[in-house]
Amino acid sequence: MKKSDPIGVFDSGIGGLSALKQFVRFLPYERYVYLGDTARVPYGNKSETTVKKYAKECVDFLLDKKVKLITAACNTVSSVALDAVKEATDLPIIDMISPVAGAALRASQNGNIGVIGTRATIKSGSYKKAIENFSQDKKTTVFSKECPLFVPLVEEGYTNHRASKIIAEEYLQTFKDKDIDALALGCTHYPLLKPLLSDLLPGVELIDSGEHAAVQAVKLLADNKLLAEESNKFRKKPEIDFYFTDLPTTFGALAERFLGFPVDSPRLINL
Amino acid sequence: MKKSDPIGVFDSGIGGLSALKQFVRFLPYERYVYLGDTARVPYGNKSETTVKKYAKECVDFLLDKKVKLITAACNTVSSVALDAVKEATDLPIIDMISPVAGAALRASQNGNIGVIGTRATIKSGSYKKAIENFSQDKKTTVFSKECPLFVPLVEEGYTNHRASKIIAEEYLQTFKDKDIDALALGCTHYPLLKPLLSDLLPGVELIDSGEHAAVQAVKLLADNKLLAEESNKFRKKPEIDFYFTDLPTTFGALAERFLGFPVDSPRLINL
Repeated sequence: MKKSDPIGVFDSGIGGLSALKQFVRFLPYERYVYLGDTARVPYGNKSETTVKKYAKECVDFLLDKKVKLITAACNTVSSVALDAVKEATDLPIIDMISPVAGAALRASQNGNIGVIGTRATIKSGSYKKAIENFSQDKKTTVFSKECPLFVPLVEEGYTNHRASKIIAEEYLQTFKDKDIDALALGCTHYPLLKPLLSDLLPGVELIDSGEHAAVQAVKLLADNKLLAEESNKFRKKPEIDFYFTDLPTTFGALAERFLGFPVDSPRLINL
Repeated sequence: MKKSDPIGVFDSGIGGLSALKQFVRFLPYERYVYLGDTARVPYGNKSETTVKKYAKECVDFLLDKKVKLITAACNTVSSVALDAVKEATDLPIIDMISPVAGAALRASQNGNIGVIGTRATIKSGSYKKAIENFSQDKKTTVFSKECPLFVPLVEEGYTNHRASKIIAEEYLQTFKDKDIDALALGCTHYPLLKPLLSDLLPGVELIDSGEHAAVQAVKLLADNKLLAEESNKFRKKPEIDFYFTDLPTTFGALAERFLGFPVDSPRLINL
Protein backbone atom coordinates (compact mmCIF):
# COMPACT_ATOMS: atom_id res chain seq x y z
CA MET A 1 0.00 0.00 0.00
CA LYS A 2 1.17 3.47 -0.85
CA LYS A 3 0.08 6.92 0.29
CA SER A 4 -0.89 7.69 -3.27
CA ASP A 5 -3.27 4.73 -3.51
CA PRO A 6 -6.94 5.65 -3.60
CA ILE A 7 -9.56 5.27 -0.88
CA GLY A 8 -12.32 2.83 -1.87
CA VAL A 9 -15.90 3.75 -0.99
CA PHE A 10 -18.92 1.59 -1.80
CA ASP A 11 -22.65 1.70 -1.27
CA SER A 12 -25.81 0.02 -2.54
CA GLY A 13 -26.38 3.06 -4.71
CA ILE A 14 -25.95 6.80 -4.55
CA GLY A 15 -26.62 7.28 -0.82
CA GLY A 16 -22.93 6.72 -0.05
CA LEU A 17 -22.18 9.89 -1.98
CA SER A 18 -23.36 11.81 1.10
CA ALA A 19 -20.56 10.07 3.02
CA LEU A 20 -18.07 10.66 0.19
CA LYS A 21 -18.98 14.36 0.40
CA GLN A 22 -17.76 14.34 4.02
CA PHE A 23 -14.57 12.49 3.11
CA VAL A 24 -13.84 15.08 0.43
CA ARG A 25 -14.32 17.90 2.97
CA PHE A 26 -11.74 16.50 5.37
CA LEU A 27 -9.44 14.65 2.95
CA PRO A 28 -9.33 16.75 -0.22
CA TYR A 29 -5.88 15.53 -1.31
CA GLU A 30 -6.86 11.87 -1.46
CA ARG A 31 -7.83 9.98 -4.60
CA TYR A 32 -11.11 8.05 -4.45
CA VAL A 33 -12.78 5.10 -6.14
CA TYR A 34 -16.52 5.12 -5.57
CA LEU A 35 -18.70 2.11 -6.38
CA GLY A 36 -22.52 2.29 -6.29
CA ASP A 37 -24.47 -0.94 -6.88
CA THR A 38 -27.37 0.94 -8.50
CA ALA A 39 -28.52 -2.14 -10.47
CA ARG A 40 -29.51 -3.90 -7.23
CA VAL A 41 -30.33 -0.93 -4.99
CA PRO A 42 -31.82 -0.80 -2.35
CA TYR A 43 -30.21 -3.18 0.14
CA GLY A 44 -32.17 -1.88 3.16
CA ASN A 45 -35.22 -4.11 2.83
CA LYS A 46 -33.33 -7.22 1.69
CA SER A 47 -32.14 -10.26 3.64
CA GLU A 48 -28.80 -10.54 5.43
CA THR A 49 -27.67 -13.35 3.11
CA THR A 50 -28.26 -11.28 -0.01
CA VAL A 51 -26.68 -8.13 1.44
CA LYS A 52 -23.55 -10.12 2.42
CA LYS A 53 -23.22 -11.57 -1.07
CA TYR A 54 -23.52 -8.15 -2.68
CA ALA A 55 -21.13 -6.51 -0.20
CA LYS A 56 -18.46 -9.11 -0.93
CA GLU A 57 -18.76 -8.46 -4.66
CA CYS A 58 -18.37 -4.71 -4.06
CA VAL A 59 -15.24 -5.27 -1.94
CA ASP A 60 -13.71 -7.56 -4.58
CA PHE A 61 -14.23 -4.85 -7.18
CA LEU A 62 -12.48 -2.23 -5.02
CA LEU A 63 -9.59 -4.60 -4.27
CA ASP A 64 -8.98 -4.85 -8.03
CA LYS A 65 -8.63 -1.06 -8.05
CA LYS A 66 -5.75 -1.28 -5.54
CA VAL A 67 -7.33 0.85 -2.84
CA LYS A 68 -5.54 1.45 0.48
CA LEU A 69 -8.68 1.63 2.63
CA ILE A 70 -12.23 0.34 2.22
CA THR A 71 -15.24 2.34 3.33
CA ALA A 72 -18.56 0.56 3.62
CA ALA A 73 -20.52 3.78 3.05
CA CYS A 74 -23.79 1.93 3.46
CA ASN A 75 -25.36 1.64 6.88
CA THR A 76 -27.15 -1.57 5.93
CA VAL A 77 -23.89 -3.26 4.88
CA SER A 78 -22.18 -1.89 8.01
CA SER A 79 -25.00 -3.32 10.13
CA VAL A 80 -25.51 -6.81 8.71
CA ALA A 81 -22.53 -7.62 6.48
CA LEU A 82 -19.41 -6.17 8.11
CA ASP A 83 -18.11 -9.67 8.86
CA ALA A 84 -18.38 -10.53 5.16
CA VAL A 85 -16.43 -7.34 4.31
CA LYS A 86 -13.73 -8.21 6.85
CA GLU A 87 -13.45 -11.76 5.56
CA ALA A 88 -12.92 -10.48 2.04
CA THR A 89 -9.93 -8.25 2.82
CA ASP A 90 -7.09 -7.47 5.24
CA LEU A 91 -7.20 -3.76 4.38
CA PRO A 92 -8.29 -1.26 7.01
CA ILE A 93 -12.06 -0.85 6.92
CA ILE A 94 -14.27 2.09 7.81
CA ASP A 95 -17.91 1.37 8.58
CA MET A 96 -20.84 3.64 9.33
CA ILE A 97 -21.64 2.32 12.82
CA SER A 98 -18.61 2.42 15.12
CA PRO A 99 -17.64 6.06 14.42
CA VAL A 100 -21.16 7.08 15.42
CA ALA A 101 -21.19 5.35 18.81
CA GLY A 102 -18.67 7.70 20.39
CA ALA A 103 -20.11 10.73 18.60
CA ALA A 104 -23.62 10.01 19.87
CA LEU A 105 -22.41 9.49 23.43
CA ARG A 106 -20.45 12.75 23.36
CA ALA A 107 -23.40 14.63 21.84
CA SER A 108 -25.90 13.38 24.41
CA GLN A 109 -25.99 15.09 27.80
CA ASN A 110 -28.74 13.00 29.35
CA GLY A 111 -27.83 9.60 27.86
CA ASN A 112 -31.09 9.21 25.91
CA ILE A 113 -30.11 8.54 22.32
CA GLY A 114 -32.31 7.89 19.30
CA VAL A 115 -31.33 5.92 16.20
CA ILE A 116 -33.15 5.85 12.86
CA GLY A 117 -32.32 3.68 9.84
CA THR A 118 -33.59 1.22 7.25
CA ARG A 119 -35.46 -1.90 8.31
CA ALA A 120 -32.34 -4.11 7.97
CA THR A 121 -30.17 -1.67 9.95
CA ILE A 122 -32.61 -1.29 12.83
CA LYS A 123 -33.51 -4.99 12.99
CA SER A 124 -29.79 -5.81 13.28
CA GLY A 125 -29.55 -3.73 16.48
CA SER A 126 -26.09 -2.65 15.30
CA TYR A 127 -26.23 0.96 16.49
CA LYS A 128 -27.85 0.09 19.80
CA LYS A 129 -25.18 -2.53 20.52
CA ALA A 130 -22.31 -0.27 19.44
CA ILE A 131 -23.50 2.68 21.53
CA GLU A 132 -24.26 0.58 24.62
CA ASN A 133 -20.92 -1.26 24.41
CA PHE A 134 -19.04 1.99 24.06
CA SER A 135 -20.85 3.76 26.89
CA GLN A 136 -19.40 1.57 29.68
CA ASP A 137 -20.18 3.34 32.95
CA LYS A 138 -22.26 6.15 31.49
CA LYS A 139 -25.98 5.49 31.87
CA THR A 140 -27.29 5.27 28.33
CA THR A 141 -30.60 4.30 26.80
CA VAL A 142 -30.93 3.81 23.07
CA PHE A 143 -34.29 4.05 21.28
CA SER A 144 -34.47 2.81 17.70
CA LYS A 145 -36.94 3.28 14.88
CA GLU A 146 -36.97 1.96 11.32
CA CYS A 147 -37.97 4.57 8.74
CA PRO A 148 -38.27 2.64 5.45
CA LEU A 149 -40.03 5.38 3.47
CA PHE A 150 -37.30 7.99 4.03
CA VAL A 151 -35.08 6.54 1.27
CA PRO A 152 -37.67 6.73 -1.55
CA LEU A 153 -38.87 10.14 -0.31
CA VAL A 154 -35.32 11.52 -0.42
CA GLU A 155 -34.68 9.95 -3.82
CA GLU A 156 -37.78 11.69 -5.16
CA GLY A 157 -36.60 15.03 -3.75
CA TYR A 158 -39.39 15.14 -1.14
CA THR A 159 -36.96 16.37 1.52
CA ASN A 160 -39.17 19.22 2.68
CA HIS A 161 -42.60 18.06 1.57
CA ARG A 162 -45.90 17.99 3.48
CA ALA A 163 -46.22 14.25 2.99
CA SER A 164 -42.68 13.63 4.24
CA LYS A 165 -43.44 15.73 7.31
CA ILE A 166 -46.54 13.64 8.10
CA ILE A 167 -44.59 10.40 7.66
CA ALA A 168 -41.64 11.73 9.70
CA GLU A 169 -43.98 12.82 12.50
CA GLU A 170 -45.37 9.31 12.67
CA TYR A 171 -41.95 7.66 12.65
CA LEU A 172 -40.57 10.05 15.29
CA GLN A 173 -43.66 9.60 17.48
CA THR A 174 -41.77 6.73 19.11
CA PHE A 175 -39.26 9.23 20.58
CA LYS A 176 -41.99 11.36 22.19
CA ASP A 177 -41.62 11.37 25.99
CA LYS A 178 -38.24 9.64 25.64
CA ASP A 179 -36.41 12.96 26.13
CA ILE A 180 -33.70 12.12 23.59
CA ASP A 181 -31.10 14.83 22.98
CA ALA A 182 -29.11 13.10 20.20
CA LEU A 183 -30.32 11.23 17.12
CA ALA A 184 -28.00 9.06 15.02
CA LEU A 185 -28.91 9.22 11.33
CA GLY A 186 -28.29 5.57 10.50
CA CYS A 187 -28.65 5.82 6.73
CA THR A 188 -26.68 7.78 4.16
CA HIS A 189 -29.90 9.21 2.73
CA TYR A 190 -30.94 10.87 5.95
CA PRO A 191 -28.50 13.82 6.02
CA LEU A 192 -30.67 15.31 3.27
CA LEU A 193 -33.57 15.32 5.75
CA LYS A 194 -31.68 17.30 8.40
CA PRO A 195 -33.77 20.51 8.06
CA LEU A 196 -37.03 18.56 8.34
CA LEU A 197 -35.79 16.45 11.27
CA SER A 198 -34.42 19.52 13.08
CA ASP A 199 -37.83 21.19 12.80
CA LEU A 200 -39.55 18.15 14.28
CA LEU A 201 -36.92 17.54 16.98
CA PRO A 202 -35.75 20.96 18.18
CA GLY A 203 -32.78 20.80 20.51
CA VAL A 204 -31.83 17.28 19.43
CA GLU A 205 -28.33 16.95 17.94
CA LEU A 206 -28.36 15.06 14.66
CA ILE A 207 -25.38 12.74 14.15
CA ASP A 208 -24.29 12.30 10.52
CA SER A 209 -22.61 8.90 10.19
CA GLY A 210 -20.72 9.92 7.02
CA GLU A 211 -19.11 12.86 8.78
CA HIS A 212 -17.86 10.78 11.69
CA ALA A 213 -16.73 7.99 9.35
CA ALA A 214 -14.64 10.56 7.46
CA VAL A 215 -12.95 11.74 10.65
CA GLN A 216 -12.30 8.10 11.53
CA ALA A 217 -10.64 7.68 8.12
CA VAL A 218 -8.35 10.65 8.82
CA LYS A 219 -7.21 8.97 12.06
CA LEU A 220 -6.84 5.52 10.55
CA LEU A 221 -4.80 6.75 7.59
CA ALA A 222 -2.62 8.91 9.82
CA ASP A 223 -1.99 5.99 12.21
CA ASN A 224 -0.96 3.83 9.26
CA LYS A 225 1.17 6.59 7.67
CA LEU A 226 -1.07 6.37 4.65
CA LEU A 227 -2.39 9.94 4.36
CA ALA A 228 -1.87 11.33 0.86
CA GLU A 229 0.80 13.98 0.50
CA GLU A 230 -0.80 17.42 0.70
CA SER A 231 0.37 19.88 -1.89
CA ASN A 232 0.47 23.60 -1.10
CA LYS A 233 -1.86 24.24 -3.99
CA PHE A 234 -5.53 24.77 -3.34
CA ARG A 235 -7.52 21.88 -4.77
CA LYS A 236 -11.18 22.49 -5.33
CA LYS A 237 -12.17 18.90 -6.05
CA PRO A 238 -10.30 15.65 -5.50
CA GLU A 239 -9.78 13.00 -8.13
CA ILE A 240 -12.66 10.51 -7.99
CA ASP A 241 -13.32 7.52 -10.24
CA PHE A 242 -17.01 6.72 -10.19
CA TYR A 243 -18.36 3.25 -10.99
CA PHE A 244 -22.00 2.20 -11.00
CA THR A 245 -23.80 -1.02 -11.94
CA ASP A 246 -26.66 0.94 -13.51
CA LEU A 247 -27.03 4.48 -14.81
CA PRO A 248 -30.77 5.27 -14.95
CA THR A 249 -32.05 8.44 -16.60
CA THR A 250 -32.55 10.36 -13.36
CA PHE A 251 -29.08 9.47 -12.12
CA GLY A 252 -27.17 12.73 -12.59
CA ALA A 253 -29.38 15.21 -10.79
CA LEU A 254 -30.05 12.80 -7.94
CA ALA A 255 -26.38 11.96 -7.41
CA GLU A 256 -25.45 15.63 -7.35
CA ARG A 257 -27.95 16.22 -4.53
CA PHE A 258 -26.01 13.75 -2.36
CA LEU A 259 -22.48 14.69 -3.37
CA GLY A 260 -22.86 18.46 -3.58
CA PHE A 261 -21.14 18.60 -6.98
CA PRO A 262 -21.66 16.74 -10.26
CA VAL A 263 -20.62 13.10 -10.63
CA ASP A 264 -17.97 13.36 -13.34
CA SER A 265 -17.80 10.62 -16.04
CA PRO A 266 -19.49 7.77 -14.17
CA ARG A 267 -18.56 4.37 -15.62
CA LEU A 268 -21.00 1.49 -16.01
CA ILE A 269 -19.75 -1.89 -14.79
CA ASN A 270 -21.08 -5.40 -14.06
CA LEU A 271 -20.56 -7.06 -10.70
CA MET B 1 -46.05 -28.28 -24.81
CA LYS B 2 -48.85 -30.03 -22.98
CA LYS B 3 -52.09 -28.81 -21.42
CA SER B 4 -50.80 -29.96 -18.07
CA ASP B 5 -47.64 -27.81 -18.29
CA PRO B 6 -47.59 -24.85 -15.93
CA ILE B 7 -48.03 -21.16 -16.73
CA GLY B 8 -44.89 -19.14 -15.98
CA VAL B 9 -45.31 -15.74 -14.34
CA PHE B 10 -42.44 -13.44 -13.45
CA ASP B 11 -41.97 -10.01 -11.92
CA SER B 12 -39.24 -7.88 -10.38
CA GLY B 13 -40.62 -8.81 -6.98
CA ILE B 14 -43.96 -9.42 -5.34
CA GLY B 15 -46.04 -6.93 -7.35
CA GLY B 16 -46.73 -9.57 -9.98
CA LEU B 17 -48.64 -11.51 -7.33
CA SER B 18 -51.51 -9.06 -7.88
CA ALA B 19 -51.58 -10.24 -11.52
CA LEU B 20 -51.26 -13.89 -10.46
CA LYS B 21 -54.28 -13.33 -8.21
CA GLN B 22 -56.30 -12.45 -11.33
CA PHE B 23 -54.98 -15.48 -13.24
CA VAL B 24 -56.03 -17.72 -10.36
CA ARG B 25 -59.55 -16.22 -10.40
CA PHE B 26 -60.10 -17.01 -14.08
CA LEU B 27 -57.85 -20.06 -14.51
CA PRO B 28 -58.10 -22.02 -11.25
CA TYR B 29 -57.30 -25.40 -12.84
CA GLU B 30 -53.92 -24.35 -14.19
CA ARG B 31 -50.58 -25.02 -12.53
CA TYR B 32 -48.31 -22.00 -12.05
CA VAL B 33 -44.63 -21.22 -11.60
CA TYR B 34 -44.10 -17.74 -10.14
CA LEU B 35 -40.68 -16.08 -10.09
CA GLY B 36 -40.03 -12.81 -8.20
CA ASP B 37 -36.59 -11.19 -8.53
CA THR B 38 -36.77 -9.78 -4.99
CA ALA B 39 -32.96 -9.58 -4.69
CA ARG B 40 -32.83 -6.88 -7.37
CA VAL B 41 -36.26 -5.26 -6.97
CA PRO B 42 -37.33 -2.62 -8.00
CA TYR B 43 -36.89 -2.46 -11.78
CA GLY B 44 -39.02 0.68 -12.24
CA ASN B 45 -36.32 3.29 -11.68
CA LYS B 46 -33.54 1.35 -13.45
CA SER B 47 -32.21 1.65 -16.99
CA GLU B 48 -33.56 -0.20 -20.01
CA THR B 49 -30.30 -2.14 -20.45
CA THR B 50 -30.40 -3.46 -16.90
CA VAL B 51 -34.12 -4.32 -17.02
CA LYS B 52 -33.59 -6.26 -20.28
CA LYS B 53 -30.73 -8.26 -18.78
CA TYR B 54 -32.75 -9.15 -15.69
CA ALA B 55 -35.87 -10.00 -17.73
CA LYS B 56 -33.91 -12.42 -19.91
CA GLU B 57 -32.58 -14.19 -16.83
CA CYS B 58 -36.12 -14.54 -15.47
CA VAL B 59 -37.36 -16.01 -18.76
CA ASP B 60 -34.47 -18.49 -18.89
CA PHE B 61 -35.38 -19.66 -15.41
CA LEU B 62 -39.03 -20.23 -16.38
CA LEU B 63 -38.01 -22.08 -19.57
CA ASP B 64 -36.11 -24.53 -17.39
CA LYS B 65 -39.37 -25.16 -15.56
CA LYS B 66 -41.04 -26.26 -18.83
CA VAL B 67 -43.83 -23.70 -18.81
CA LYS B 68 -46.32 -23.50 -21.68
CA LEU B 69 -46.86 -19.73 -21.52
CA ILE B 70 -44.78 -16.85 -20.17
CA THR B 71 -46.37 -13.89 -18.41
CA ALA B 72 -44.29 -10.77 -17.93
CA ALA B 73 -46.30 -9.70 -14.86
CA CYS B 74 -44.22 -6.57 -14.53
CA ASN B 75 -45.30 -3.41 -16.30
CA THR B 76 -41.73 -2.13 -16.45
CA VAL B 77 -40.50 -5.28 -18.21
CA SER B 78 -43.56 -5.19 -20.50
CA SER B 79 -42.76 -1.56 -21.34
CA VAL B 80 -39.03 -1.58 -21.95
CA ALA B 81 -37.90 -5.20 -22.27
CA LEU B 82 -40.60 -7.08 -24.18
CA ASP B 83 -38.29 -7.47 -27.19
CA ALA B 84 -35.71 -9.14 -24.93
CA VAL B 85 -38.40 -11.50 -23.62
CA LYS B 86 -39.51 -12.37 -27.16
CA GLU B 87 -35.93 -12.98 -28.27
CA ALA B 88 -35.41 -15.40 -25.41
CA THR B 89 -38.32 -17.70 -26.24
CA ASP B 90 -40.77 -18.89 -28.90
CA LEU B 91 -43.46 -19.59 -26.31
CA PRO B 92 -46.63 -17.50 -26.28
CA ILE B 93 -46.10 -14.40 -24.13
CA ILE B 94 -48.56 -12.33 -22.13
CA ASP B 95 -47.53 -8.79 -21.28
CA MET B 96 -49.15 -6.10 -19.15
CA ILE B 97 -49.59 -3.46 -21.87
CA SER B 98 -51.44 -4.82 -24.90
CA PRO B 99 -54.39 -6.32 -22.97
CA VAL B 100 -54.97 -2.90 -21.41
CA ALA B 101 -55.16 -0.95 -24.67
CA GLY B 102 -58.48 -2.42 -25.76
CA ALA B 103 -59.84 -2.43 -22.22
CA ALA B 104 -59.09 1.27 -21.75
CA LEU B 105 -60.65 2.18 -25.10
CA ARG B 106 -63.78 0.20 -24.27
CA ALA B 107 -63.99 1.74 -20.80
CA SER B 108 -63.67 5.32 -22.02
CA GLN B 109 -66.76 7.02 -23.42
CA ASN B 110 -65.13 10.35 -24.25
CA GLY B 111 -61.74 9.09 -25.46
CA ASN B 112 -59.74 10.84 -22.72
CA ILE B 113 -57.63 8.16 -21.04
CA GLY B 114 -55.13 8.50 -18.21
CA VAL B 115 -52.16 6.20 -17.57
CA ILE B 116 -50.09 5.97 -14.41
CA GLY B 117 -46.96 3.87 -13.87
CA THR B 118 -43.35 3.77 -12.75
CA ARG B 119 -40.82 6.19 -14.22
CA ALA B 120 -39.46 3.58 -16.67
CA THR B 121 -42.95 2.57 -17.82
CA ILE B 122 -44.16 6.12 -18.43
CA LYS B 123 -40.91 7.29 -20.04
CA SER B 124 -41.16 4.38 -22.50
CA GLY B 125 -44.54 5.68 -23.73
CA SER B 126 -45.62 2.05 -24.06
CA TYR B 127 -49.22 2.49 -22.91
CA LYS B 128 -49.74 5.69 -24.87
CA LYS B 129 -48.46 4.04 -28.06
CA ALA B 130 -50.47 0.83 -27.52
CA ILE B 131 -53.72 2.69 -26.83
CA GLU B 132 -53.28 5.16 -29.70
CA ASN B 133 -52.36 2.40 -32.19
CA PHE B 134 -55.34 0.33 -31.13
CA SER B 135 -57.82 3.21 -31.25
CA GLN B 136 -57.65 3.62 -35.06
CA ASP B 137 -60.58 5.86 -36.04
CA LYS B 138 -61.79 6.61 -32.53
CA LYS B 139 -60.62 10.03 -31.32
CA THR B 140 -58.40 9.27 -28.33
CA THR B 141 -56.13 11.34 -26.16
CA VAL B 142 -53.81 9.69 -23.66
CA PHE B 143 -52.42 11.56 -20.65
CA SER B 144 -49.58 9.90 -18.72
CA LYS B 145 -48.05 10.45 -15.30
CA GLU B 146 -45.20 8.71 -13.52
CA CYS B 147 -45.94 7.97 -9.84
CA PRO B 148 -42.63 6.65 -8.44
CA LEU B 149 -43.60 6.84 -4.77
CA PHE B 150 -46.67 4.62 -5.11
CA VAL B 151 -44.58 1.42 -5.04
CA PRO B 152 -42.80 2.10 -1.72
CA LEU B 153 -46.02 3.47 -0.19
CA VAL B 154 -47.92 0.29 -1.12
CA GLU B 155 -45.06 -1.91 0.10
CA GLU B 156 -45.20 -0.15 3.47
CA GLY B 157 -48.95 -0.69 3.67
CA TYR B 158 -49.73 3.03 3.29
CA THR B 159 -52.60 2.27 0.90
CA ASN B 160 -55.07 4.51 2.68
CA HIS B 161 -52.81 6.92 4.50
CA ARG B 162 -52.98 10.72 4.75
CA ALA B 163 -49.50 11.06 3.27
CA SER B 164 -50.36 8.77 0.35
CA LYS B 165 -53.47 10.86 -0.31
CA ILE B 166 -51.42 14.06 -0.45
CA ILE B 167 -48.89 12.49 -2.80
CA ALA B 168 -51.65 10.95 -4.95
CA GLU B 169 -53.43 14.31 -5.18
CA GLU B 170 -50.23 15.87 -6.47
CA TYR B 171 -49.59 13.11 -8.99
CA LEU B 172 -53.20 13.15 -10.23
CA GLN B 173 -53.23 16.95 -10.49
CA THR B 174 -51.99 16.47 -14.05
CA PHE B 175 -55.38 14.92 -14.99
CA LYS B 176 -57.36 17.88 -13.66
CA ASP B 177 -59.32 19.59 -16.46
CA LYS B 178 -58.42 16.71 -18.80
CA ASP B 179 -61.85 15.12 -18.29
CA ILE B 180 -60.50 11.56 -18.28
CA ASP B 181 -63.06 8.80 -17.70
CA ALA B 182 -60.67 5.81 -17.67
CA LEU B 183 -57.33 5.36 -15.92
CA ALA B 184 -54.97 2.49 -16.74
CA LEU B 185 -53.10 1.27 -13.65
CA GLY B 186 -49.74 0.64 -15.29
CA CYS B 187 -48.05 -1.08 -12.36
CA THR B 188 -48.86 -4.28 -10.50
CA HIS B 189 -48.69 -2.43 -7.17
CA TYR B 190 -51.44 0.01 -8.04
CA PRO B 191 -54.49 -2.28 -7.73
CA LEU B 192 -53.94 -2.03 -3.96
CA LEU B 193 -54.52 1.73 -4.27
CA LYS B 194 -57.90 1.36 -5.97
CA PRO B 195 -59.99 2.66 -3.02
CA LEU B 196 -57.76 5.75 -2.67
CA LEU B 197 -57.69 6.42 -6.42
CA SER B 198 -61.47 5.96 -6.71
CA ASP B 199 -62.00 8.55 -3.98
CA LEU B 200 -59.77 11.04 -5.76
CA LEU B 201 -61.15 10.31 -9.25
CA PRO B 202 -64.87 9.66 -8.84
CA GLY B 203 -66.54 8.38 -12.01
CA VAL B 204 -63.24 7.32 -13.58
CA GLU B 205 -63.00 3.62 -14.44
CA LEU B 206 -59.77 2.05 -13.14
CA ILE B 207 -58.22 -0.52 -15.49
CA ASP B 208 -56.32 -3.32 -13.73
CA SER B 209 -53.65 -4.61 -16.12
CA GLY B 210 -53.37 -7.97 -14.31
CA GLU B 211 -57.07 -8.67 -14.76
CA HIS B 212 -57.01 -8.00 -18.50
CA ALA B 213 -53.76 -9.94 -18.89
CA ALA B 214 -55.45 -12.93 -17.24
CA VAL B 215 -58.37 -12.77 -19.67
CA GLN B 216 -55.86 -12.52 -22.52
CA ALA B 217 -54.21 -15.69 -21.19
CA VAL B 218 -57.55 -17.52 -21.23
CA LYS B 219 -57.97 -16.62 -24.92
CA LEU B 220 -54.39 -17.42 -25.89
CA LEU B 221 -54.42 -20.81 -24.17
CA ALA B 222 -57.83 -21.67 -25.66
CA ASP B 223 -56.65 -20.68 -29.16
CA ASN B 224 -53.61 -22.91 -28.75
CA LYS B 225 -55.64 -25.79 -27.26
CA LEU B 226 -53.49 -25.51 -24.17
CA LEU B 227 -56.08 -24.85 -21.44
CA ALA B 228 -55.66 -27.26 -18.54
CA GLU B 229 -58.32 -29.94 -18.20
CA GLU B 230 -60.96 -28.79 -15.73
CA SER B 231 -62.05 -31.34 -13.23
CA ASN B 232 -65.57 -31.34 -11.87
CA LYS B 233 -64.20 -30.95 -8.38
CA PHE B 234 -64.18 -27.55 -6.77
CA ARG B 235 -60.61 -26.40 -6.31
CA LYS B 236 -60.05 -23.63 -3.81
CA LYS B 237 -56.46 -22.88 -4.70
CA PRO B 238 -54.39 -23.90 -7.69
CA GLU B 239 -50.98 -25.51 -7.53
CA ILE B 240 -48.32 -22.77 -7.53
CA ASP B 241 -44.55 -23.15 -7.21
CA PHE B 242 -43.08 -19.93 -5.84
CA TYR B 243 -39.45 -18.92 -6.46
CA PHE B 244 -37.78 -15.75 -5.22
CA THR B 245 -34.21 -14.44 -5.39
CA ASP B 246 -34.47 -13.00 -1.86
CA LEU B 247 -36.74 -13.69 1.11
CA PRO B 248 -36.53 -10.68 3.42
CA THR B 249 -38.13 -10.72 6.87
CA THR B 250 -41.22 -8.76 5.86
CA PHE B 251 -41.83 -10.96 2.85
CA GLY B 252 -44.74 -13.14 3.97
CA ALA B 253 -47.25 -10.54 5.09
CA LEU B 254 -46.46 -8.25 2.19
CA ALA B 255 -46.81 -11.01 -0.42
CA GLU B 256 -50.16 -12.08 1.02
CA ARG B 257 -51.49 -8.54 0.61
CA PHE B 258 -50.86 -8.81 -3.16
CA LEU B 259 -51.94 -12.40 -3.69
CA GLY B 260 -54.93 -12.51 -1.37
CA PHE B 261 -53.79 -15.79 0.21
CA PRO B 262 -50.49 -16.93 1.77
CA VAL B 263 -47.47 -17.68 -0.40
CA ASP B 264 -46.94 -21.36 0.32
CA SER B 265 -43.35 -22.70 0.67
CA PRO B 266 -41.47 -20.02 -1.30
CA ARG B 267 -38.11 -21.28 -2.56
CA LEU B 268 -34.95 -19.17 -2.59
CA ILE B 269 -32.95 -19.28 -5.84
CA ASN B 270 -30.07 -17.47 -7.55
CA LEU B 271 -30.42 -16.00 -11.02
